[in-house]
Parts: sequence; C-alpha cells; structure tokens
Amino acid sequence: MPELAYRLSLIKTSPIRRIAALLDQARRKRDIISFGGGAPSLPPPKEFLDEIMRLLKEMPQRACGYCGTRGLPELRSLIAEDLKKYFGVSYDPGKEIIITDGGTEGIFLTLFSILDKGDEVIILDPTYLGYSEAIKLAQGRVITLPVSVENGYQPDPEMLKERITGRTKAFILLSPDNPTGRIIREDFVKTLVDLAIDKDFWIIYDAAYKHIVYEGKNVWVDSFPGAREKTITINTFSKEASIPGLRLGYTTGPSEVIEAMEKIKQYVTLAPDTLGQYALLKFYENGVKDRYLREVVLPTYRRRRDLMASLIQKYLPEAKTVVPGGAFYFFVDIRYYLEKMNRDDEEFCNRLLYRKNVVAIPGSHFGSMGKGHIRLTFVSEPEERIEEGMRRIGAFMFSYVF
Amino acid sequence: MPELAYRLSLIKTSPIRRIAALLDQARRKRDIISFGGGAPSLPPPKEFLDEIMRLLKEMPQRACGYCGTRGLPELRSLIAEDLKKYFGVSYDPGKEIIITDGGTEGIFLTLFSILDKGDEVIILDPTYLGYSEAIKLAQGRVITLPVSVENGYQPDPEMLKERITGRTKAFILLSPDNPTGRIIREDFVKTLVDLAIDKDFWIIYDAAYKHIVYEGKNVWVDSFPGAREKTITINTFSKEASIPGLRLGYTTGPSEVIEAMEKIKQYVTLAPDTLGQYALLKFYENGVKDRYLREVVLPTYRRRRDLMASLIQKYLPEAKTVVPGGAFYFFVDIRYYLEKMNRDDEEFCNRLLYRKNVVAIPGSHFGSMGKGHIRLTFVSEPEERIEEGMRRIGAFMFSYVF
Repeated sequence: MPELAYRLSLIKTSPIRRIAALLDQARRKRDIISFGGGAPSLPPPKEFLDEIMRLLKEMPQRACGYCGTRGLPELRSLIAEDLKKYFGVSYDPGKEIIITDGGTEGIFLTLFSILDKGDEVIILDPTYLGYSEAIKLAQGRVITLPVSVENGYQPDPEMLKERITGRTKAFILLSPDNPTGRIIREDFVKTLVDLAIDKDFWIIYDAAYKHIVYEGKNVWVDSFPGAREKTITINTFSKEASIPGLRLGYTTGPSEVIEAMEKIKQYVTLAPDTLGQYALLKFYENGVKDRYLREVVLPTYRRRRDLMASLIQKYLPEAKTVVPGGAFYFFVDIRYYLEKMNRDDEEFCNRLLYRKNVVAIPGSHFGSMGKGHIRLTFVSEPEERIEEGMRRIGAFMFSYVF
Repeated sequence: MPELAYRLSLIKTSPIRRIAALLDQARRKRDIISFGGGAPSLPPPKEFLDEIMRLLKEMPQRACGYCGTRGLPELRSLIAEDLKKYFGVSYDPGKEIIITDGGTEGIFLTLFSILDKGDEVIILDPTYLGYSEAIKLAQGRVITLPVSVENGYQPDPEMLKERITGRTKAFILLSPDNPTGRIIREDFVKTLVDLAIDKDFWIIYDAAYKHIVYEGKNVWVDSFPGAREKTITINTFSKEASIPGLRLGYTTGPSEVIEAMEKIKQYVTLAPDTLGQYALLKFYENGVKDRYLREVVLPTYRRRRDLMASLIQKYLPEAKTVVPGGAFYFFVDIRYYLEKMNRDDEEFCNRLLYRKNVVAIPGSHFGSMGKGHIRLTFVSEPEERIEEGMRRIGAFMFSYVF
C-alpha cells in the first residue's frame, strides 16, 4: 500500500465518535444508559417533518436537487431576520451568511479560511474536543487557557492576555459551553473584543447552544462595539431543531470570510443538503421555532437538568460541579472518588460501562484540566432513565469506595 | 479585519458553482435553457421517497439523529452486496467502506488522507474541475496528462509513463468521464494498475457515473489483479438515485485509508446525513435500484443523448465531438466557429447566455486542452427544450458566422 499522509499522525480520533460507534453495537446487546454524546432525544418540530413530506410529494426533484454552495437564499434571509430578532444584529443574507454541514463544517471551513502554518489559536482547557484537531488539520498551533470548577469555569482575562503573541490568529469562545455548561461572563467578552481589536485577531464564537439557556442571558459577541469585523459565529440546527442527523448549520461573518468559506466548501462538500433547508423555512415561520424552544426543548431539558443536579448531590455528595446555565452537560469533578478508587477518569468510565452499562465521558478527553472529571449529558435519556443511570453510578462508587 | 489564509490564493472559485448561483437568480427572471451543471432532472425512485415519509412518521427521532462517522452499518452492508453483484469484488462493510457527503467529500477526504506537501497527483486535461483545487488544498502538486477528441479522449499509456516521478502519489481516473463522456479503455487501466504496483502510487478511481453507461462496458479498477491495495474508489448517489441535493456517496478502499478518512471526517462534517441513509436501504431492496436505472434513468438519458447528438450534427456540422458512451455530457470542439467569430470559449458562453438564454460551460474551465470547446449536458432538460436550446445555439452561430 502506498503511504498515507503525515498529517494523520498529528490528529487523534475523536473519543466521543469512538464511543458512539461502540454504542451503536452495544445497544443491540444490552440495556445501556447513555450520558455520553450530547444528542437531543426529542423529535424535531412537527411542522418541519410535515414540510419534508409535502416537499417530497409536491416537488421531489427540486427538494432533492442541488442548491448553491452558500445554501438557499430564502433560508439565509429567514436566518438574518431571526438573528436580528433575537440578538439585535443585522446580517446581509447575501454576503454574510453561509449554510454549512452542521457546526462541524462551519468550524472546519472557518479555520481553513483564516489559518496559515504556525498561526496560534487560543482555546479553553477543557473544551469541545473538535477544535484542537481541526486547528492542527489547518496547520495551526493550539494554545490553551485553563479554566476550573473553582471559578465556575470562567476564563481569567489576565491569563488570556498572557497568552496573546504576535502569532495569535484566533480565540475560540463557546458559550453556553461544552463540556461545562457555563455561560460566559460579559466582562470577559468585553476584554476579549477589546484585545481582538487591539491585537487584530479573530474571535470564533461557537454559538451551537445559543438557545439552550436555562438561567441568565447568553452573550452575542457581534453586539459588542467593534466586534463585527473580528467575529465569525458558528451556528447549528442540531440542538435548536433537534436534527443533528440532518447535518445543517450556518456561519455568519464579514463578507470576505464567508466568500473564503464558500470557495473552500466547493471542494469539501460542494453544497448543503437541499431538502432539510427547504423544510427549515417552516421552522422560522409562524412562530414555530419560538414555540418549539419555549414549550418543548427548554422545559424538557430544564427538568432533566434539575433532576440530574439533585441526583449528583444525592449519589456523589463529594463531587464538585456547577449547575449548568445552558447547554447539555454537567462537568463533574470526581477526584475525591477517583483517589479512593485509585483510578483515573478514563479507567473509571471504561469500568462504569463494563460493570453498570452506563456511558459517561472521561473529562481528560476535553483537555488536561479535565483530568479527574466526567461529563454527563442530561438530554439523551428521559427522567426515569436518568434516575436509574445515576443510581447505578452511585452503586458503582459505593462498591469501590466504601 | 485580520488576515485570511494564504491557501485561498492557491485555489480558484469553481466556475460551475458560480454559474449555478447566477442561474438561481436568472431563472426567476427569464426562460433559461441549461446545458450547464450535470444535475439529474428526474425525481428519485418512489420507494425512496415513500421510505423517507414512513421514517419521519414512525421514527422521526432516530431518522434525524446522529449516526457513526462511517455511516449506517446496514447501508454499508447493502453497498457491499451491490458492488459484489455488479462488479464481482468483495468489500468488508465494516472496514473498507465509508459513507460520505457526496462524491465531493470522498475526493476531499481521500486527498487529505494520502497527500503530503509536494506530492504529485496526475489528472487528465481536460477533467472534472474539482480535482485540481482539492489537490492544492491538500498541499499536493497537479500534473496533467492531455487527451483530445482525436483519440476519443483516451489517455496515452506512454505519455502517462513519462509523467511518473519519485513524487507521484496518485492518479485520478474518472470513467465514464466528465466532461467528455468517454469510457476508459481496458488496456489503459491494465497499464495504469501495473504502474501503480511497480511505482507504488494510488489510483483514485472516481466512479461517479459507474451506472450511467449507454454502450459498452465500464471498467471496475479493483477487479484487475493486484489493484485492490492501490485503489480508492469514489462513489456518489447523486447520479444513480437522482438525489444530488441530499449529499450522499461512499468511498471504498484498503481499511487503513478508510480509517484515515474517518479520522479526518470527524473534524470536517462529523457524520453523514442519517435520514437519507435509512431511506437508501430501500433503494437496494427488491430490485428498486436495478429497475430505476433500467426503466427510468438509462432510457431517458439515452434518448436525450441521441437527440443531442443529432442536433449537434444538424446545427453545428463543423464541430468535432465523440458521442459519449456514458455520463451526462457532450464535450464539443467548436474551434471552427470560434475562429470565425474571433471569440474564445468563455466569451462564447457568456454571449450565448446573454443573447439566447442558453447555458453552456466553457471547455477551458476543465483544463488548457479544453480551450475552444464547450460542455453541454443532456440530462438537465427534457427533449423539447434540448431541441429548442440547440436551435438557439445554431441560430446564434449562424448570426455570427455566416
């Protein structure tokens, strides 16, 4: 066999994707409770599903035909209206928005559009594990900024300043956050924007969970004075419309960046899925989106979050965590237990799956600061199974520790 | 605005995508006949459409939920059976097949999995315009092998040998071909496989049009002795199931390559579209695929091809072309006319659109050997509009030339 590319040695396989594949197989055999991947477990809005069926009946050819690389103009217009309504910021749907294959492609195209070899990108530690590998694929360098449970997973502006160099090309901000659920403080964003203006670097704002907010108010980076020219915002329909499997998202940014992303996208995926885009037009009409979020998504996930919070207290009283203001996860510091068990977080999760059929994600997958933690999602299982899963984790701890 | 990446200066915007975007707008205003992009104009099989509706009714959550990065195991198994049936070659669905976001992502992931900086990839001239830019994005070097209408667009094995160096990493073979419709000769493939074994380079076999064959028999590179270890085969559902807008395809190859592609795909698009994959299970069942190709796709496109062949003779008697054995296109050498008009192929196509509302693609977009040619697709319009479009082209020529 001829050789493979050197770049493969630079990147890791995503452990969450590996677990997803394992889970696909394991589920067929046993009753597994998953607090693993952050996959919505709600059906998409009925209006969206009905619209797909109508499209396939009335215009199958157009619904399954190619669209332009930036996506349907009608959908981009509705997105612009929606962003204006929610965040008060105006985007030109013809120039400042591109539809992508989920948030993942948005991140990939963004990094490929802005990074040259050796450019530095600052990310938090712990953070979403897709960033570092995509940065490396684009030949960038990963610089980390540690956060911890003691500060509610809020990054320190002073520590950020220390990390900025002449090669700093971008900072990636995810809020609400994965894996910690933390909503970023406004004063940090203010400092970040001022630094981006002063030092001329990009803010990549990953707004994947922008509507999944239980308490407080999430920021919108572009609404800070001077931020527009420096900010690229990644969005996905996976969380807010519960359609992760349809792979649709969008990115906003200065027209030059969107044009660059389009150019690269032509050779990566050519164009986004047409059928899902047409159906999403209904997501934005007649208040469907607002109602779906307000009546279905947020109440369901809030109940599950509150339940999991109380169960963590009940079964893992020595663990440290922050009740998440948004997103899908508890990031739990279980070092107290791990020390008694003489295990690390990875061994803990492996044994938990093997012995109790419960999936949790080792915190160390999200960065070195995540060591001794586990990430538990509360959106993938209904309440009675959250209860059962947490009971199993408690029993597992108890059998080891006491 | 902070700087964009240098790599953007290395790649061109796809002219066909630019035309597609223009067309999107222009169509609203005028009656345009498109011989441009190779987009199927048939509805997908009814069984496929019905299955999407059933899935959305009976299991919306699963149908719109994440799947593994390699795609649904059930679909990969059916693909393996299908390839065995059609081409007599066995693939391990667990290890040697990955589902991609159309053929485009298959090409992209393949090149990113095998190319290091400076590695050479040999492509034909003219050829599909996606290859060269994707090669450059992956830091490879493009080496071209010219073909021309005089040899029926068949590449010359001796000229291929001359182009192989110590840095040759891959050869891209597309058959049936875009833009020429030529089906590759077996003796060329035999030579190519022997060279790939001898010199240890990859054959990237783009089988996008593998089932769109009107006369003769297309090759299957993996069925040649010794080819399996050297060949990566790109497939798409866009042409054979008429679903280009759903962005689904698959790639086969040695397990190491598929593993590499999966690793990269995690950070490019995460996973393929789940809904379309579930519905494609029906495409492979109960002879749906065979029947759709035999009774709908091939007779329709063959009729249109034969019609366009006769109309080219009628309206452009001095043009040179080869009646395509497969795929969607006539590649027509119109130098006789262009000389009299004192125009190049790009100017010709621009004026044809402006004056006659007919889209044709300038041959020079497919490589320097394509200068003085136009590409006409015969699948995007029904017969009466092919007739009308060719009449307009004839009238346009006549007004200039005589």
